Amino acid sequence: MKRPKIVVLGAGYGGLMTVTRLQKQLSSNEADIVLVNKNDYHYETTWLHEASAGTLHHDKVRYDVSSVIDSGKVQFVQATALKVDHNAKKVILEDGELDYDYLVVALGAAPETFGIQGLDKYAFSIVNVDAARQIREHIEYQFATYKVEEDKKPERLTIVVGGAGFTGIEFLGELGNRIPELCKEYDIDQELVRVICVEAAPSALPGFDPELVKYAMAHLEKKGVEFMIGTAIKEATPEGIKVAKGEDEIEEIKAATVVWAAGVRGNPIIEASEFENMRGRVKVDANLRAPGLSDVFIIGDCSLVINEEINRPYPPTAQIAMQQGELVAKNIANLVKGNTHLETFVFDNKGTVCSLGHDDAIGVVFGKKVTGTTASFMKKMVDNRALLMVGGVGLTLKKGKFKFF
Amino acid sequence: MKRPKIVVLGAGYGGLMTVTRLQKQLSSNEADIVLVNKNDYHYETTWLHEASAGTLHHDKVRYDVSSVIDSGKVQFVQATALKVDHNAKKVILEDGELDYDYLVVALGAAPETFGIQGLDKYAFSIVNVDAARQIREHIEYQFATYKVEEDKKPERLTIVVGGAGFTGIEFLGELGNRIPELCKEYDIDQELVRVICVEAAPSALPGFDPELVKYAMAHLEKKGVEFMIGTAIKEATPEGIKVAKGEDEIEEIKAATVVWAAGVRGNPIIEASEFENMRGRVKVDANLRAPGLSDVFIIGDCSLVINEEINRPYPPTAQIAMQQGELVAKNIANLVKGNTHLETFVFDNKGTVCSLGHDDAIGVVFGKKVTGTTASFMKKMVDNRALLMVGGVGLTLKKGKFKFF
Repeated sequence: MKRPKIVVLGAGYGGLMTVTRLQKQLSSNEADIVLVNKNDYHYETTWLHEASAGTLHHDKVRYDVSSVIDSGKVQFVQATALKVDHNAKKVILEDGELDYDYLVVALGAAPETFGIQGLDKYAFSIVNVDAARQIREHIEYQFATYKVEEDKKPERLTIVVGGAGFTGIEFLGELGNRIPELCKEYDIDQELVRVICVEAAPSALPGFDPELVKYAMAHLEKKGVEFMIGTAIKEATPEGIKVAKGEDEIEEIKAATVVWAAGVRGNPIIEASEFENMRGRVKVDANLRAPGLSDVFIIGDCSLVINEEINRPYPPTAQIAMQQGELVAKNIANLVKGNTHLETFVFDNKGTVCSLGHDDAIGVVFGKKVTGTTASFMKKMVDNRALLMVGGVGLTLKKGKFKFF
Repeated sequence: MKRPKIVVLGAGYGGLMTVTRLQKQLSSNEADIVLVNKNDYHYETTWLHEASAGTLHHDKVRYDVSSVIDSGKVQFVQATALKVDHNAKKVILEDGELDYDYLVVALGAAPETFGIQGLDKYAFSIVNVDAARQIREHIEYQFATYKVEEDKKPERLTIVVGGAGFTGIEFLGELGNRIPELCKEYDIDQELVRVICVEAAPSALPGFDPELVKYAMAHLEKKGVEFMIGTAIKEATPEGIKVAKGEDEIEEIKAATVVWAAGVRGNPIIEASEFENMRGRVKVDANLRAPGLSDVFIIGDCSLVINEEINRPYPPTAQIAMQQGELVAKNIANLVKGNTHLETFVFDNKGTVCSLGHDDAIGVVFGKKVTGTTASFMKKMVDNRALLMVGGVGLTLKKGKFKFF
């Protein structure tokens, strides 16, 4: 009898959780497990804002896929997946194809620019290690160049962050720590640097407790961040951005660095594969399967799960992706073993902590509001927990966030 | 009786040597000493190629002027000097003026582009700390961007060094060490990187022993440097350079980074002040004074001293600048003390060592040819010696090049 073939696309939080759980639950005689990922490394998407600001080296936010998979049970294929042909039960890769009996799509998100002109061309997005590295170097290069040029362009020292959501705020927190270092490195007066956060919604961190939002904004303003809340970016240009001011007016903000952190959508593969979707996210069934397909599971940022309490989708987070990965691994293992009973997914929200730089944070953990060093400590524990769950104690010690006194 | 006022322009090798010797030889009752410099720090011009390549942090190549001057005897003025009015005995600063009884012009060099179109606009020059930092960041930014862009431009990974003279060769040596690090940092295959040295003269390192030149070129070629000797750069463009190929043909070399290291001239102040000069360098008299002026001394890269043996000017080096500074300090101290006998300048050439990266070098020291680790060690001693002579043991220990095993 042929062993069933399980293909997992993506070595992010969801994909790695799926594979590391599958390799524990299945023997190599029971199934062939194939993990497909563009890079030979996993990166911590939730730490990329640090690599982008330059406060944490990008090698600290990634580790080799090979360090967490059991090569006796899992075959790793470094490739880019383009499309799922669910009729033929095949994945089309950039260079070849793979058939599957069970497929787990865990490919993460792509930036959502909401059709705002120029954003895709003139703004950076904190999407992966390559992008984070470029943002870091771009900012440094602007500082270095400002110092050299005779006819000084003040906009070289202006950084616009589009969006005061989770990623935007966390990135601003890191910039708050990084800017003084950059000023020292390039002999630049910190008064000349501007960091502007533009958010279209009427408040920063929508969905967060207003008291915590106020705390976060006050903290960031003290570090020099200027907020333009309730202000929509109309266009990104080679010179900066244009924002709406009142009804008809447009204001131009010159900035050499524009980082778009205001929204994500599912991976383009979802649309390419013609799954029913909303902005690249598939509303999965109770077992996290694509509608009408018994063998295709979709988890993480490409999946859409409704929070029944408020009748709105859960935001895509590492936490939900990992819980989905665990469940999918359990269900697929059962199917492989001939047990057709599938467990349904229930999100166990342990809370959310939003970092404000290395020394402060805000959050709600197990239903309790936290700020300051407590929150900051909780954040690091959250970060370490992901490592622990995927790679165990060894990886956590190697890549975790610790401070030894 | 009014104390004579000695003004020294420039805190480079020559200027600092002058001031540190003057402050030893004169009491604060005998003269007012004023040191004028654009920055509040001195930088090691001969180490800038390392800061430019990114192999040595720029803070290691500079130290505060205040750390070597005796503030009880020397007044430091941070200013940019524009012109010397030798009839009125005044120096015109960007913001104000200074009168003098004795003037020492020790302002260093500026890049000489020989009228080659586009070089001033599209090529970098290793001229100061600000420029070195920008070159370092520019190269890194190209690597970071190459990794991100969909439509990859191979020229982002091409670095052209214009000139195989001393600075060009030393910079190539550092790049040889730095490129592998950059490739690792940005996950780039080293095969994709090109480092091309273009030299118009029929040989690299003109004036050096041919055997040593051969050694140097072989060493650098092993590290991946491509040499185009006897090839003239005709133009620098936003895309790279155009070089002469045969009689009429022009070849274009695409390169995101072009560093011009093929020539220097004296500081523009020389021409602005209407001193008789050749490319900004003044042929000084035997006492290092400007022709016809008893109170203006010119040393370092703005001075021109003929090597009688070959009837050609000595190349501008830190070594000659420092010896000139010592002599001028002695002569001015004598004049201040009423002793009108001036000593004449004789260059005591102790040799030259050209670095080929941190682990190799070539040179002639006390008339003996050296290569490899011996030469490399000698080079570091030469570097440390400049620190020792200006700032003593303390500065040498703080800023010197040592490796403790």
